[in-house]
Amino acid sequence: MKMAHMVTNCSFSPSPAVKTYSKSPGYCCNVTQFQSSKCSNLVLKSCTATRPNRPFVARASAAVQGQTQTPLTGSQQASGHSSSKPKKVMVIGGDGYCGWATALHLSNKGYEVAIVDNLVRRLFDHQLGLDSLTPIASIQNRIRRWKALTGKTIQLYVGDICDFDFLSEAFKSFEPDSAVHFGEQRSAPYSMIDRSRAVFTQHNNVIGTLNVLFAIKEFSEECHLVKLGTMGEYGTPNIDIEEGFITITHNGRTDTLPYPKQASSFYHLSKVHDSHNIAFTCKAWGIRATDLNQGVVYGVRTDETAMHEELSNRFDYDGVFGTALNRFCVQAAVGHPLTVYGKGGQTRGYLDIRDTVQCVELAIANPAKPGEFRVFNQFTEQFSVNELAKLVTAAGAKLGLEVQTKSVPNPRVEAEEHYYNAKHTKLMELGLEPHLLSDSLLDSLLNFAVQYKDRVDTAQIMPSVSWKKMGAKPKTVSV
Amino acid sequence: MKMAHMVTNCSFSPSPAVKTYSKSPGYCCNVTQFQSSKCSNLVLKSCTATRPNRPFVARASAAVQGQTQTPLTGSQQASGHSSSKPKKVMVIGGDGYCGWATALHLSNKGYEVAIVDNLVRRLFDHQLGLDSLTPIASIQNRIRRWKALTGKTIQLYVGDICDFDFLSEAFKSFEPDSAVHFGEQRSAPYSMIDRSRAVFTQHNNVIGTLNVLFAIKEFSEECHLVKLGTMGEYGTPNIDIEEGFITITHNGRTDTLPYPKQASSFYHLSKVHDSHNIAFTCKAWGIRATDLNQGVVYGVRTDETAMHEELSNRFDYDGVFGTALNRFCVQAAVGHPLTVYGKGGQTRGYLDIRDTVQCVELAIANPAKPGEFRVFNQFTEQFSVNELAKLVTAAGAKLGLEVQTKSVPNPRVEAEEHYYNAKHTKLMELGLEPHLLSDSLLDSLLNFAVQYKDRVDTAQIMPSVSWKKMGAKPKTVSV
Repeated sequence: MKMAHMVTNCSFSPSPAVKTYSKSPGYCCNVTQFQSSKCSNLVLKSCTATRPNRPFVARASAAVQGQTQTPLTGSQQASGHSSSKPKKVMVIGGDGYCGWATALHLSNKGYEVAIVDNLVRRLFDHQLGLDSLTPIASIQNRIRRWKALTGKTIQLYVGDICDFDFLSEAFKSFEPDSAVHFGEQRSAPYSMIDRSRAVFTQHNNVIGTLNVLFAIKEFSEECHLVKLGTMGEYGTPNIDIEEGFITITHNGRTDTLPYPKQASSFYHLSKVHDSHNIAFTCKAWGIRATDLNQGVVYGVRTDETAMHEELSNRFDYDGVFGTALNRFCVQAAVGHPLTVYGKGGQTRGYLDIRDTVQCVELAIANPAKPGEFRVFNQFTEQFSVNELAKLVTAAGAKLGLEVQTKSVPNPRVEAEEHYYNAKHTKLMELGLEPHLLSDSLLDSLLNFAVQYKDRVDTAQIMPSVSWKKMGAKPKTVSV
Repeated sequence: MKMAHMVTNCSFSPSPAVKTYSKSPGYCCNVTQFQSSKCSNLVLKSCTATRPNRPFVARASAAVQGQTQTPLTGSQQASGHSSSKPKKVMVIGGDGYCGWATALHLSNKGYEVAIVDNLVRRLFDHQLGLDSLTPIASIQNRIRRWKALTGKTIQLYVGDICDFDFLSEAFKSFEPDSAVHFGEQRSAPYSMIDRSRAVFTQHNNVIGTLNVLFAIKEFSEECHLVKLGTMGEYGTPNIDIEEGFITITHNGRTDTLPYPKQASSFYHLSKVHDSHNIAFTCKAWGIRATDLNQGVVYGVRTDETAMHEELSNRFDYDGVFGTALNRFCVQAAVGHPLTVYGKGGQTRGYLDIRDTVQCVELAIANPAKPGEFRVFNQFTEQFSVNELAKLVTAAGAKLGLEVQTKSVPNPRVEAEEHYYNAKHTKLMELGLEPHLLSDSLLDSLLNFAVQYKDRVDTAQIMPSVSWKKMGAKPKTVSV
């Protein structure tokens, strides 16, 4: 039987290896063994479940007593609220764009953090010939650097959550109070490259999430699942989008039902499937879950990733993993026209990555009740693609950049002009303090893109995946 | 590369083998090779796509001219309507309960039929220690017998639709005008036995259907997908259930959206996932699809299966694959109390298997338009479990059977008293002529159970799978 291994304290074990697991040889990741010379600087603590007071846990605030009605901040909850034991958070997919920033943020706030990741996102870059705008360190060096800078340990379990033996060992060993699940293939275009990647996306995401649900039921019944969904689950209905549920009066009777879903890629659909599966297990097994239907994330810096270049987050600007606003900033920085797909009236919810980490922290600090399936719409502002292009053009002008915009044929099948009004009050009620785009566009986004513009590969910018033309045959996306 | 093989004309090939494929060794089916002595009686025709007028096709009615607004009957469409070429229907899962009855019915109506099946349903019986009330012949003998009785050929492709190479070859070779997709794991309790069977159910059903969609896009773009969904996708909302879509007015705006889904097992959820995936491909690729949200099917005899005992359909009365009414009839026949789960107020839509085959025929004969995702609720009457128990008790009395009823703890998580009113007019509008339960209960159901009562294994009757207690560990369901 396979066993899950984590990075252990090197002072006890001179040459530990990070064991890797993968169901599918095509996605197997090989991670170089730690060298003992590096290990002497590493000092990652071993985790044994019974150790009561970890010396490296920062208590960021005093425990709050008798205030269960008031939303907690992350540091209040991380410190164990009214007990002395720090709260443990498993960040599945903690090597990715949102996952890495979240893992650092939670660690900084005093949570005991473990990252579970098979690192397959890095393999996708190799296979598609893509690269992050920012140079990113290995997950091992990231964690070492974090420890060196802050004294805080992040544990690492390298493996595939579709491998239930691996996931079980990780759960049994770490015993999380919360599991934040970013561990999914998260690109719509990737899921639309060819049949095998469509199937991979749905299998990986749906079965991975099923395994997480079974692991919680089996090993950590009280563990709060914080699952990353997407605003794309709702599509673009002609009525207001509510947060997860809608009250319908029909033929004289009324019920509150799951909000109808109209996803528009095999990736977005996989999240719809997850939401239905999670809702069922909350009802049938009493799982406590929060589904964060996240909008499009922009930005790259958080307080923690900005502390050292080895903590840098990835920044995708390519046609497969890059999202609208990040890609526009890179285009503006290198003098490439902003590529608006079709008419540009596509409107979505957006948020700064600093708000992503804040939202996850708030969800963890104020967990769902046993059996509760809670849905938060996680974004701060709505923009159409044309509005984004205008904002980037104006901000570029202030930096002396002459920004052009051109319309390219829309590779997707989506409405290009539509009504869009999505509610997003629940996270605000918990205390979210948004970073608005108008404030951060120049400071943290456009300047950042300019800083790294020499690393831009312009061949990666244009859309390379067509919704209509996708076929059954395996495809190599060429740039 | 694997190649799909079908049963070919034995006069040309003295000892053909049915090749079997399976992704998963655990579900691999071995089918005995045909003996040449048997083959001499078999006379299954080889299928080459260019043969224009198959001699074995019965023209059950004259072609209808100029009546495109009037729903067609199956025989009208099977005969090619206004052309001379018979219509071809691929019945995926054609060895199962509904699939076999449908394959025979469509063949009888003049369609050219191919069955695609990996026969894994038979393996489930072996693994769980279950058996059909009725003795069922091998699929090869079933098809031989059908040919001998009617002169009609049913082609056979044995393989797993999750294996896209196999499915591709089947599509390219048969070139279906319609694909009727019954090829899914279809038991809610089976999907709730343990983690591995939950994962199998969702993987098998979701990926299998994705493959069918890709095969249609790639090889048979005009092919009409007729997909078996379930009324269980809707759950038991407190408002009327519509057929697939509901018009919602909300905050002064109106849209027609997919009806909200609240499925209550990993099996039912897999059908919800399918529905979302299919709807997307209709929109993105122009697939034409009909989703038949079927109620609980009862009965076993159809005109075709009643023609010979080797054509007998399977009849499941066990706690895993048996459905409420069929199981009650068997219980009544052997003097076992009718087992009502919990309060017995659970209300669902029901239909006679003779209406299943009729509905599928109507859907095929009146196909969805390109890009259309059409949903029909396929049932004829609503009953609560308590109402069914009363009907069976009364019918049993007429046969001299003293029928008891007892409540057993509900192994499922479901509302036991609830509002239920589901629309089902679309198939009626196409011409469905229902067989109502009151007429068939004595004739074809209870008498049938009595006829085979010596084959009943009473150990199989009680529920053996608990929704709440299901765990991650592999479980052997013991009787």
